Amino acid sequence: MAITGAHVARAPRIRLGMVGGGRDAFIGAVHRIAARLDDQYELVAGCFSSSAEKSMASGADLGVDPRRTYASFAEMARAEARKKEGIEAVAIVTPNHMHAPVALEFLRRGIHVICDKPLTATLTEAKKLAKAAEASGVVFALTHNYTGYPMIRQAAEMVRNGELGEIRLVQVEYAQDWLAEPIEQSGQKQADWRTDPARTGAGGATGDIGTHAFNLANFVTGLTLESLAADLQSFVAGRRVDDNGHVMMRYTSGAKGMLWCSQVATGLENNLKLRVFGTKAGIEWSQEDPNYLWVGPLGAPRYRLTRGGAGSGAAAARVTRIPPGHPEGYLEGFANIYAEAARAILARRDGSPPDAAVTFPGLKEGLEGVAFVDACVRSSRKNGAWVTLNL
Amino acid sequence: MAITGAHVARAPRIRLGMVGGGRDAFIGAVHRIAARLDDQYELVAGCFSSSAEKSMASGADLGVDPRRTYASFAEMARAEARKKEGIEAVAIVTPNHMHAPVALEFLRRGIHVICDKPLTATLTEAKKLAKAAEASGVVFALTHNYTGYPMIRQAAEMVRNGELGEIRLVQVEYAQDWLAEPIEQSGQKQADWRTDPARTGAGGATGDIGTHAFNLANFVTGLTLESLAADLQSFVAGRRVDDNGHVMMRYTSGAKGMLWCSQVATGLENNLKLRVFGTKAGIEWSQEDPNYLWVGPLGAPRYRLTRGGAGSGAAAARVTRIPPGHPEGYLEGFANIYAEAARAILARRDGSPPDAAVTFPGLKEGLEGVAFVDACVRSSRKNGAWVTLNL
Amino acid sequence: MAITGAHVARAPRIRLGMVGGGRDAFIGAVHRIAARLDDQYELVAGCFSSSAEKSMASGADLGVDPRRTYASFAEMARAEARKKEGIEAVAIVTPNHMHAPVALEFLRRGIHVICDKPLTATLTEAKKLAKAAEASGVVFALTHNYTGYPMIRQAAEMVRNGELGEIRLVQVEYAQDWLAEPIEQSGQKQADWRTDPARTGAGGATGDIGTHAFNLANFVTGLTLESLAADLQSFVAGRRVDDNGHVMMRYTSGAKGMLWCSQVATGLENNLKLRVFGTKAGIEWSQEDPNYLWVGPLGAPRYRLTRGGAGSGAAAARVTRIPPGHPEGYLEGFANIYAEAARAILARRDGSPPDAAVTFPGLKEGLEGVAFVDACVRSSRKNGAWVTLNL
Amino acid sequence: MAITGAHVARAPRIRLGMVGGGRDAFIGAVHRIAARLDDQYELVAGCFSSSAEKSMASGADLGVDPRRTYASFAEMARAEARKKEGIEAVAIVTPNHMHAPVALEFLRRGIHVICDKPLTATLTEAKKLAKAAEASGVVFALTHNYTGYPMIRQAAEMVRNGELGEIRLVQVEYAQDWLAEPIEQSGQKQADWRTDPARTGAGGATGDIGTHAFNLANFVTGLTLESLAADLQSFVAGRRVDDNGHVMMRYTSGAKGMLWCSQVATGLENNLKLRVFGTKAGIEWSQEDPNYLWVGPLGAPRYRLTRGGAGSGAAAARVTRIPPGHPEGYLEGFANIYAEAARAILARRDGSPPDAAVTFPGLKEGLEGVAFVDACVRSSRKNGAWVTLNL
Repeated sequence: MAITGAHVARAPRIRLGMVGGGRDAFIGAVHRIAARLDDQYELVAGCFSSSAEKSMASGADLGVDPRRTYASFAEMARAEARKKEGIEAVAIVTPNHMHAPVALEFLRRGIHVICDKPLTATLTEAKKLAKAAEASGVVFALTHNYTGYPMIRQAAEMVRNGELGEIRLVQVEYAQDWLAEPIEQSGQKQADWRTDPARTGAGGATGDIGTHAFNLANFVTGLTLESLAADLQSFVAGRRVDDNGHVMMRYTSGAKGMLWCSQVATGLENNLKLRVFGTKAGIEWSQEDPNYLWVGPLGAPRYRLTRGGAGSGAAAARVTRIPPGHPEGYLEGFANIYAEAARAILARRDGSPPDAAVTFPGLKEGLEGVAFVDACVRSSRKNGAWVTLNL
Repeated sequence: MAITGAHVARAPRIRLGMVGGGRDAFIGAVHRIAARLDDQYELVAGCFSSSAEKSMASGADLGVDPRRTYASFAEMARAEARKKEGIEAVAIVTPNHMHAPVALEFLRRGIHVICDKPLTATLTEAKKLAKAAEASGVVFALTHNYTGYPMIRQAAEMVRNGELGEIRLVQVEYAQDWLAEPIEQSGQKQADWRTDPARTGAGGATGDIGTHAFNLANFVTGLTLESLAADLQSFVAGRRVDDNGHVMMRYTSGAKGMLWCSQVATGLENNLKLRVFGTKAGIEWSQEDPNYLWVGPLGAPRYRLTRGGAGSGAAAARVTRIPPGHPEGYLEGFANIYAEAARAILARRDGSPPDAAVTFPGLKEGLEGVAFVDACVRSSRKNGAWVTLNL
Repeated sequence: MAITGAHVARAPRIRLGMVGGGRDAFIGAVHRIAARLDDQYELVAGCFSSSAEKSMASGADLGVDPRRTYASFAEMARAEARKKEGIEAVAIVTPNHMHAPVALEFLRRGIHVICDKPLTATLTEAKKLAKAAEASGVVFALTHNYTGYPMIRQAAEMVRNGELGEIRLVQVEYAQDWLAEPIEQSGQKQADWRTDPARTGAGGATGDIGTHAFNLANFVTGLTLESLAADLQSFVAGRRVDDNGHVMMRYTSGAKGMLWCSQVATGLENNLKLRVFGTKAGIEWSQEDPNYLWVGPLGAPRYRLTRGGAGSGAAAARVTRIPPGHPEGYLEGFANIYAEAARAILARRDGSPPDAAVTFPGLKEGLEGVAFVDACVRSSRKNGAWVTLNL
Repeated sequence: MAITGAHVARAPRIRLGMVGGGRDAFIGAVHRIAARLDDQYELVAGCFSSSAEKSMASGADLGVDPRRTYASFAEMARAEARKKEGIEAVAIVTPNHMHAPVALEFLRRGIHVICDKPLTATLTEAKKLAKAAEASGVVFALTHNYTGYPMIRQAAEMVRNGELGEIRLVQVEYAQDWLAEPIEQSGQKQADWRTDPARTGAGGATGDIGTHAFNLANFVTGLTLESLAADLQSFVAGRRVDDNGHVMMRYTSGAKGMLWCSQVATGLENNLKLRVFGTKAGIEWSQEDPNYLWVGPLGAPRYRLTRGGAGSGAAAARVTRIPPGHPEGYLEGFANIYAEAARAILARRDGSPPDAAVTFPGLKEGLEGVAFVDACVRSSRKNGAWVTLNL
């Protein structure tokens, strides 16, 4: 029941900057939490919005020094590169069409890049960026976050170890329903840029989530795509990019596959699912139930590997923080108790009145718990007689 | 798709100390991650072990100033209370029998306490501590972490709103198998103190996990226990505390219940499950699948609420960070990409050779993804003809 | 993929009579289908109701010779016992209080008895009946039907083979919600007699479904109950028998258990679930998902046995008709096609007009299916070009 | 809790013949059980094998009059057509290539046909048969049995009622693993003819199970296929028909779909799954869990309809025999008790010694059950004191 990495001697935190991720943004906050979780990064600079005012306000919210909160990413790159203790890495969390220009500005100054996916909005700029990044020698991480799940690491390890035999089939799907109606026409910010070819690129659902599905299948199987045949649709009237895609795939090894991505699959929230079938066994993983990996060996009962449980190997352990049976929301649940307590503590600090909505267990619950144990022991000693809590 | 609290103007972080949680400990690291997740605490002091040497080493691992890393919790309480910028709150993550002595030392100095559960090892000291804490006026949070789950908040809200009608039945269970064999006899540290009545208290499974189950049922239902009848067992030869407990419960409202806690339930990892049945509807929640709450109304189809999804209310939203469909492990998966990138960045900083085990998506994957979208669009425009990736 | 028993040389069918099970009854029809499924019984006589008129009408519905449709079970027993080709066995599907009188009448004449559960309404008559039945030497089968499920046979076999080790814990529950409201007060026939102590016996939920749960646990574990402690409730105002029961159990072997039965568990339909935990492994079976048996060995991944699948043994195979992966509703689905076709055929026989609600696949669907295959093959031969169905 | 059709006045049973389905066959026995379940057919004639000897032996097993057990289906058709009480309907359960010749022989004599799927092995004979059958005016039923499931009827009804809105997407799959290895090369009878193009037709997996998937999607949606693009594979070396197929589909309405069929999907038993997404809601049904239909309305919680449960409508009720919560294996479990009792009764009839493997509950279990209820009531009246069973 070890917490990975929590007790190894720690180097000083990596100085991190961020481009994008201001007020109203979604993925920027996810990146910040991700950076904080293992205490290896410190957010010290940012250009959080193309609006100077919004960038400053967002920086203040986040506790970033106003002198290192910038109105332009180019200025930020220049200024930080000149500092002795300037940022070592930048997280890019802008819409897709801005990934390449921002990344180029930083990597040419030797600053490592952590960039949201997809890499760019067009293939031309992707190639240009890839070339420049390689030349620069910086670390370039693309947050195809699903490859970070322990049971996906486990799956990839099993494929590499030959536990599935030769891979024959890949079935991968990523289906949501949040674009089943034309919400981009009524100003929903996330929908707005994701359905605008100028900002998101030529692919809609294909680019936004199809790339995740494709990447995940590649990561686990290690296969190389040879060719594909695709049928893309825009079901919602007036939509300018695809909102559903059907793809048949042929891999160089002779394996075959199907990929389905959709943002109009009514009733599905975030259904990313991968199935891989080899000559010896098949596996199944679903993002909505990520702590499990199902394994179906030919001619033997189907079994379920759990993150960190029996049969789960080194690749999964490497990225596991908490014991099996505690699905990964455990940390968030725990953090909620800390967050609620923080609200109470800050109210005391300010002398403000308590907020009735703040909810966390305290002395009453603690006392009840100990009294419960005491009562159980007393009752059991009396052969199960009914006893009351001694409170 | 908002990230709770991430963009509200933030007060300076709460200065936090920790007692316990040194190298080899489990729950201390969980507390630290929980404190870090929303960036509202800063760990600035600690007494991480009763061994001075181990406390210093652990503090160094964690980046805590050696001058604020203490060999004794009493000394820590005195020293920090004297500082102008001393800790405002202390997290106590020691074995159960040390909760009371440590808490008393800090709270009498006006330092807020966040204490692991159960409150104490004995009822006598629980009562003493409760009285002292109330007198002191500090914030006292007990990490019954399961009350922090969004769908548990949702469940409690539904009970309060009368959506279940009058509560008739509570069925709650918390069953594990990690003590199915006498592992305390071969030195497993976690098992060692948890099966020692002097450190854990009179209840074994009852105290360690039965209290969680009891607390969870109380939290959701708001009921008050009137009496209980218990049958506790120690199935493993030589075990000094119960490793399984059966409890029948009667609540003051007339509701009835059963509670089962076990650490010898072979094949179960961490099976905490709550079911509550009222005159109008029943609900079910399982810790191993925490993003869902099942609702069974009398005479209508059973439905599934998801964290943040349609029908999920304000109480859950308050403690929700990420959108529906992204189970809470999403943040950990994301953080794993950041952690892997950090390893690469730190290797560059040190000039050390790359570690082959470090795995994160980068330019190759990014380029492939964009080429995939490009190919999908080209194929679809050619009526689904087979095309190759343009790499 | 064998169909058990379908091809073994068959003896002439067993001549079967029935007591109870007339129009409006539920379980009688289930018994008749069960008797017919393997074609080993022929229903040739009956006393289907205590009302002579209703008995005759029911017999006519069922195609039973009116001369062998009786108004009194005593008369039926006498008359059938005198016939050369009289019934060999009788199925008793009356309310509980009539089981003993009816059974005694037949078994004293050497007629085998298949009796619905529970055996009787009172312990006194149960003992009397058991003694008389043993003395008579007839076959006496009690339809605790859940012991007939293949995966329950599998579970029992595994316990006997020692695959679970020594049994420590039994957790069994049977919970429904159909009596959550006082429906017996508005004339619901099934609820009426089941909540009347004179007809159902002293136990309500305990007798109706608690006995199933208790029997199932005994069947699988082979354990003998030593003692129990029970807390029974009648939650619905005015109800004369228990509608919920909590029971703690101690077995002679030292194993312990809990049993919960309820007919007021809002939102649950027919939730019969058994879990057994031994020193080596735990198992879990749920009646609502009966084709699976979950096995959790200590220290190895949890796996799922399927009826007839890999790892499923001889005891299950003995009572299995169809291949793995075809859950047992397969036969009913198939039968529905036959039943729909029968309606069409009978309409032709009678010259009556076709019934628009009759629905079954026919030539159109058959032609489409073959055209579908033809199109798939043509498209694939053209490298996946789009083709139309050749209809 | 009614049993459909069990109590309606019944016409004399339909006289049924069978072609195919002798010893070693699989689907013939399924047809016979299906015909028997509702007691509307009587098997009175058959040509069970192309081997005269095997046909006779099989007929004897099944209790068919030897004078109506034939060595040739043509002879059977002639002879039965001449009889006054000849068969009214014939069930055809031969390999695919024999469907057309057999059906033609019977239907031209006015005998109704119930034929296993697919209709024929080639499109040419399918068209010929369809024309002849229509001309003859007989009832022709094709056992696409999956359309007989109650929740599939429910799904179709919901589509027709507009509850899904306009259908956009169909995702259907039927995947098994029983042909993952070249078992046809070692004489497995089922695999032998199913992989022989002369007997099975041009499609392998496509014809055997792809047609089921295609038919099911059509049945539920009512859509008409416009065109398809297919990529079929034969993964197993030496296999002469496809064992895996990927198909993209376009419907005339503008809806799109994907179909996957496979007999090499390692670890899957009989995974037939249909998902349909409309503008208002999506639905999901899985053959391995057939009593449930999942409904995901846009912007409302996902809910689960159960066969016969709340919200389940008339179309499902029409083909439902047993109450909600009793999955359809209930009847088979029940029948197993009857079958076991039959073995005991037949042993008595023959004077043969009891078979130790015969297992069914009897007096001991009945007595224990009543004693259990008695003990529960006594304990509860003594406030939950421990009591022993009074046996």
